[in-house]
Amino acid sequence: MTERVVLAYSGGLDTSVAIPYLAEKTGAEVIAVAVDVGQGGEDMKVIRQRAIDCGAVESEVVDARDEFAAGYCLPAIRANALYMDRYPLVSALSRPLIVKHLVAAARKHGGTIVSHGCTGKGNDQVRFEVGLGALAPDLKVVAPARDFAWTRDKAIAYAEEKGLPIDVSAKSPYSIDQNLWGRAVETGFLEDIWNGPIEDVYSYTANPAEPRDADEVVITFDAGVPVAIDGETVTPFQAVAELNRRAGAQGIGRLDMVEDRLVGIKSREVYEAPGAIALITAHQELEAVTVERDVARFKKSVDQRWAELAYDGLWFSPLKGSLDAFIDDTQKHVSGEVRLTLHGGRAVVTGRRSESSLYDFGMATYDTGDTFDQSLAKGFVQLWGLPSRMAAARDARLGGPSA
Amino acid sequence: MTERVVLAYSGGLDTSVAIPYLAEKTGAEVIAVAVDVGQGGEDMKVIRQRAIDCGAVESEVVDARDEFAAGYCLPAIRANALYMDRYPLVSALSRPLIVKHLVAAARKHGGTIVSHGCTGKGNDQVRFEVGLGALAPDLKVVAPARDFAWTRDKAIAYAEEKGLPIDVSAKSPYSIDQNLWGRAVETGFLEDIWNGPIEDVYSYTANPAEPRDADEVVITFDAGVPVAIDGETVTPFQAVAELNRRAGAQGIGRLDMVEDRLVGIKSREVYEAPGAIALITAHQELEAVTVERDVARFKKSVDQRWAELAYDGLWFSPLKGSLDAFIDDTQKHVSGEVRLTLHGGRAVVTGRRSESSLYDFGMATYDTGDTFDQSLAKGFVQLWGLPSRMAAARDARLGGPSA
Amino acid sequence: MTERVVLAYSGGLDTSVAIPYLAEKTGAEVIAVAVDVGQGGEDMKVIRQRAIDCGAVESEVVDARDEFAAGYCLPAIRANALYMDRYPLVSALSRPLIVKHLVAAARKHGGTIVSHGCTGKGNDQVRFEVGLGALAPDLKVVAPARDFAWTRDKAIAYAEEKGLPIDVSAKSPYSIDQNLWGRAVETGFLEDIWNGPIEDVYSYTANPAEPRDADEVVITFDAGVPVAIDGETVTPFQAVAELNRRAGAQGIGRLDMVEDRLVGIKSREVYEAPGAIALITAHQELEAVTVERDVARFKKSVDQRWAELAYDGLWFSPLKGSLDAFIDDTQKHVSGEVRLTLHGGRAVVTGRRSESSLYDFGMATYDTGDTFDQSLAKGFVQLWGLPSRMAAARDARLGGPSA
Amino acid sequence: MTERVVLAYSGGLDTSVAIPYLAEKTGAEVIAVAVDVGQGGEDMKVIRQRAIDCGAVESEVVDARDEFAAGYCLPAIRANALYMDRYPLVSALSRPLIVKHLVAAARKHGGTIVSHGCTGKGNDQVRFEVGLGALAPDLKVVAPARDFAWTRDKAIAYAEEKGLPIDVSAKSPYSIDQNLWGRAVETGFLEDIWNGPIEDVYSYTANPAEPRDADEVVITFDAGVPVAIDGETVTPFQAVAELNRRAGAQGIGRLDMVEDRLVGIKSREVYEAPGAIALITAHQELEAVTVERDVARFKKSVDQRWAELAYDGLWFSPLKGSLDAFIDDTQKHVSGEVRLTLHGGRAVVTGRRSESSLYDFGMATYDTGDTFDQSLAKGFVQLWGLPSRMAAARDARLGGPSA
Repeated sequence: MTERVVLAYSGGLDTSVAIPYLAEKTGAEVIAVAVDVGQGGEDMKVIRQRAIDCGAVESEVVDARDEFAAGYCLPAIRANALYMDRYPLVSALSRPLIVKHLVAAARKHGGTIVSHGCTGKGNDQVRFEVGLGALAPDLKVVAPARDFAWTRDKAIAYAEEKGLPIDVSAKSPYSIDQNLWGRAVETGFLEDIWNGPIEDVYSYTANPAEPRDADEVVITFDAGVPVAIDGETVTPFQAVAELNRRAGAQGIGRLDMVEDRLVGIKSREVYEAPGAIALITAHQELEAVTVERDVARFKKSVDQRWAELAYDGLWFSPLKGSLDAFIDDTQKHVSGEVRLTLHGGRAVVTGRRSESSLYDFGMATYDTGDTFDQSLAKGFVQLWGLPSRMAAARDARLGGPSA
Repeated sequence: MTERVVLAYSGGLDTSVAIPYLAEKTGAEVIAVAVDVGQGGEDMKVIRQRAIDCGAVESEVVDARDEFAAGYCLPAIRANALYMDRYPLVSALSRPLIVKHLVAAARKHGGTIVSHGCTGKGNDQVRFEVGLGALAPDLKVVAPARDFAWTRDKAIAYAEEKGLPIDVSAKSPYSIDQNLWGRAVETGFLEDIWNGPIEDVYSYTANPAEPRDADEVVITFDAGVPVAIDGETVTPFQAVAELNRRAGAQGIGRLDMVEDRLVGIKSREVYEAPGAIALITAHQELEAVTVERDVARFKKSVDQRWAELAYDGLWFSPLKGSLDAFIDDTQKHVSGEVRLTLHGGRAVVTGRRSESSLYDFGMATYDTGDTFDQSLAKGFVQLWGLPSRMAAARDARLGGPSA
Repeated sequence: MTERVVLAYSGGLDTSVAIPYLAEKTGAEVIAVAVDVGQGGEDMKVIRQRAIDCGAVESEVVDARDEFAAGYCLPAIRANALYMDRYPLVSALSRPLIVKHLVAAARKHGGTIVSHGCTGKGNDQVRFEVGLGALAPDLKVVAPARDFAWTRDKAIAYAEEKGLPIDVSAKSPYSIDQNLWGRAVETGFLEDIWNGPIEDVYSYTANPAEPRDADEVVITFDAGVPVAIDGETVTPFQAVAELNRRAGAQGIGRLDMVEDRLVGIKSREVYEAPGAIALITAHQELEAVTVERDVARFKKSVDQRWAELAYDGLWFSPLKGSLDAFIDDTQKHVSGEVRLTLHGGRAVVTGRRSESSLYDFGMATYDTGDTFDQSLAKGFVQLWGLPSRMAAARDARLGGPSA
Repeated sequence: MTERVVLAYSGGLDTSVAIPYLAEKTGAEVIAVAVDVGQGGEDMKVIRQRAIDCGAVESEVVDARDEFAAGYCLPAIRANALYMDRYPLVSALSRPLIVKHLVAAARKHGGTIVSHGCTGKGNDQVRFEVGLGALAPDLKVVAPARDFAWTRDKAIAYAEEKGLPIDVSAKSPYSIDQNLWGRAVETGFLEDIWNGPIEDVYSYTANPAEPRDADEVVITFDAGVPVAIDGETVTPFQAVAELNRRAGAQGIGRLDMVEDRLVGIKSREVYEAPGAIALITAHQELEAVTVERDVARFKKSVDQRWAELAYDGLWFSPLKGSLDAFIDDTQKHVSGEVRLTLHGGRAVVTGRRSESSLYDFGMATYDTGDTFDQSLAKGFVQLWGLPSRMAAARDARLGGPSA
């Protein structure tokens, strides 16, 4: 019986041409699976038909937008997930979800091979294949770009030769991946890291330097999850989409960075993630108000590791699950409202309030109503500093360095 | 012989009135020591004379601006020191330096007591007293605000009663601490954390929302230290002062946060630190280019601990020294140039270049000149994901949860 | 109405004498509460009566042995809790449980004050009072040894003066705290840290140097919890008690260390914890077999922090709860059997087996049956080492240090 | 010109046969390099000649015993390097040193290829090749066992066919690597992890269960380095060798564990490291006496990472260097004497003394001479527990869980 290969299909030139190419190269039937993670662009029905036109024996489109928002973006908010303190994991978050649907399609259609369009020097190959190894270790993987050195030029030539129904003329200088959580752009001239991005690179965000009126938004969180915007209940998908729109209109969430890839090299990346940055900013501040100090300090190492795991393709790893258990416990009381001013590329917190606040006016105030017992401080200070004092005395005794 | 108390003197109402009050309360002679850490304001000679006029037997002013920049602000840049990911440690950095000069004055003038104006619910008492314990464990400490419940109202009444040469009419609603590295503001109406700051609160920064032309600056670092701005060599002090001026003019470095104090309470703080934020932003990006990935990942935990120690008053602790040794080693190659656009409250990196860059165009490019051997990737991906795959297989075998 | 003070009562000289002393000093009625955490010694009924005889208006004894084993010792096993890599937290574990029962007694009997016998330089005062602050912030605390400088000599004189029914003649040179989880000993001659302990110090353990036959034991764990010994189902209490007996008979679990107290000083401590050491040793090895590598590496930092929190009196802190959530998740598959040889002071693992093992004979073997695909290794090794290689090349290029 | 391959040569069957095999397979001349890292066994001159007899064009032996002890074992002591809390990194430490000498030989003799005997499923291939990539990225690597599936059976057949001067009859069931720092053993029957090791497996250690007299030793450290044993000055090599002898005679340092290999699998390993375990035990206790608490707590994460890097083949990584800088700073005062009783498989500290001790008798004692001011404790305890108390009050207010 003929083998079947399940292809992660985007509708674009490369994966469209990959359909007949994979069939020819592997002798297998090709099943195209396109997953909607909020990337926008063409109608999913058009994309489905294109796969058929290119020779796919089955073509599926999956609307995974709500699943992506609830199961992948929300945990990233709760983990304040910013790889290298900046990148909110745009592509990294969508890959495990796509993997899940590829596996489901393989099971449904009898696929034994999975194929993706990633190269051998990026992170996404790792995210696809490590995810597949966890969810379906029996499936084989083929990655034409990496395994057959299949390039865009070859794809164009092949499309023309085979007369595929693909427009090969539109040649964008940009390599783009986008979804609900943000947008990643790579392009030749940015590979010189001294060059700055030009306005043309951006699509989710307006130019922050252009004058416009500020926007003020109040985000309500319940246990670390955004549940309302300006008092109106929202689904996770709506929360991110609405803040993409409003923060994007204010030029918020542009990122330009040199980043450490898992495969061991540094690369230049430009991102836009207006909703993600606005939501994480608000969430961090609500944590500052509602999370106890020692938890907050330890959670920073947990958050960092969480972001590294997601970035490094280890979404389905046991450690990711155990870190989630920690984070879940910390979010019980991260409930309340945060008011943000969105303006000029900045999402600035100007107010926060919470039933579960640990900020205590009586303890904090220097005015009437002060309930803090200052007489306790002297003993605290003395014993807090005792180890330092003893070590300094030792150093002095031994003639070591002081201040 | 009469005891002598060395007072950390600011020139303001509270510490001026403290001079005769301390003399009366302790029976000791008072030596006033004012340390210039770039706080600006009155002429230091005027401040010195005021202490004498209030009854100090000795009055010293110390110009510690270069020492503060080189020995306290620069290490903070190298540690990307941001407490709770935001606060660049304005007051926290100046306290140990002031302590050092208080001890020097005590040794010079035969002081046996040190006095400071901090309350019992803040962090600064800890920084003063733990620092003193490390540098001069033999000195006693007296803190009138904490130990004698000495308040501003009492100080005003006392000044009028004694006819002290102090203007008690100017009553600012703000409690302010400022130095070269930034400015901290507390005030009654901000103790309601739902209230936003008003423009009146700020002094180091212009309103970021006002339209103005962008400013572009190139900062040169050598081993993690800023050494030139736009090609002109600068001292550490000049680097911070110049960026305070230029980034401040663009409204950069305003912070509004709820913060975990060492004494166990949360407080609302507003900060301005234009130079600090611009320099740390540039430094972080130069590290992204020049520091190896595993170092970068581990350094985040070191940087966090460094900021906690500085915040928590443990500047002279042994751990601080050992973390510095780690950081020094990581900064050997953090040399090169970073170009920032300063505009509208944002300090945005647009370019970076370095002789010691680990960004390798040949490894990173997807165009001609690619030197990355993609054939290595498959084996890497397989073994990288092996533990996850085996754990997932175990879970499946035992009927446990999958995706 | 007369106030009532709830006293943590041991039945010994100090707390017995404290009953009339507290009544006299505070004017309150004294309620004695003795908690059985497996410390052995006198019958609890005798202890209860003694409190009455000394003047307590109420005297309660609580059999908390099963609660201690299940709720305090088991979590310590799952966290491999060894403070400073050695001390299994004997006293530290019992304090929060005793606090819980003191609070319950205060609620039942209308107590408004709680009293304990700890000094001001130890850890236990912190554990008592921080625990009380968390569970019952309204209760006041009085600690005669610390707050009234109440010493043993004064207690003896007071007992004789008042004719209390206490034997004041038996004067042990040792200060001892013991419970199911172990035994802690302090004594004058060990305060010289060059002196070694003498055999007389020990009670839970036989001399490991004496020749005797080895004992072999198989411990069965289910989700990180010991559930059977040599195939016989045990309760948590039985698991610890049985291993105290068998490992103690082999001289296992003696510890002699200099330890960092929370109050900032170093102290010399001698411990015996035969059951704890045997159980943690077995648990660690079963984790090695069943826990994935990245989880294991991260869990070490969680385990360390867990032990620090328990040691530092923060049992009821939010961070403790969140760490427990992490640990719970990691223990799902820590099930199976570990065989230990107990002999000559050593608990040595000689075998382990588990349905949920991640050890895979086929992957590990060098003999027939090898299923590991060695061809994957080359690519893995190359990319694994790529960041180091690029950094070394950079160093060489800049004339920096090599090997 | 003929290429030259530098072979890491042990003198044993596999690498001896590899000499003509490599020559045949690669067409290159073979240069054998044997490095003495204290593995004992045959005379190095005999080994050198055997390589020549097997066809090597050059044969070098390098006495690297002192270099190994000073540059590799001592840093491991200072880092208390125990992978997974147990394994003192026997093979992991020698690999980078051997790499260094292979590179030196390649440079001297014009070698362009390096060869080693490691398989594709172990850690040592990584240590060799990542090390080579760092020190000499231009050299190619060939690993016959991995790259040509070269096995012991093939080697024996090849040796007989070619009439090589090798004894192929002696067939040990054990796969062994040993050096000054310890000895690692793998063997078929231990691949069943329920089987215990038999006495026959061990060579560096006597049976700990056999009755014998105890041995007492005093080790003097200077800045974390052992410099004298029982008062006699020793070199690093002598320190380890002497303790191997004395601790080995008491059966100390046997380890039996399941371990996480870098390549992603778990394996069963048996080790003997009597000197390493005795030295690290003594060093840890001296740190407990001389290192300040916060340093000690943070150093545990540094030590763990150090051991992971050494285990994972990243000896020459930048992070290793930066961790060493941290550790060096912490060791300044780790000087003094530790007395150990070596007996029955246990190395037990019974005394420690140090000029740079932070143990302060006056602060620690409960007897006459107590200098600790207990009145400071109450304030300390209150503020230490304040965040927990406020969080607990919040939980209670919201009806959340208590104890």
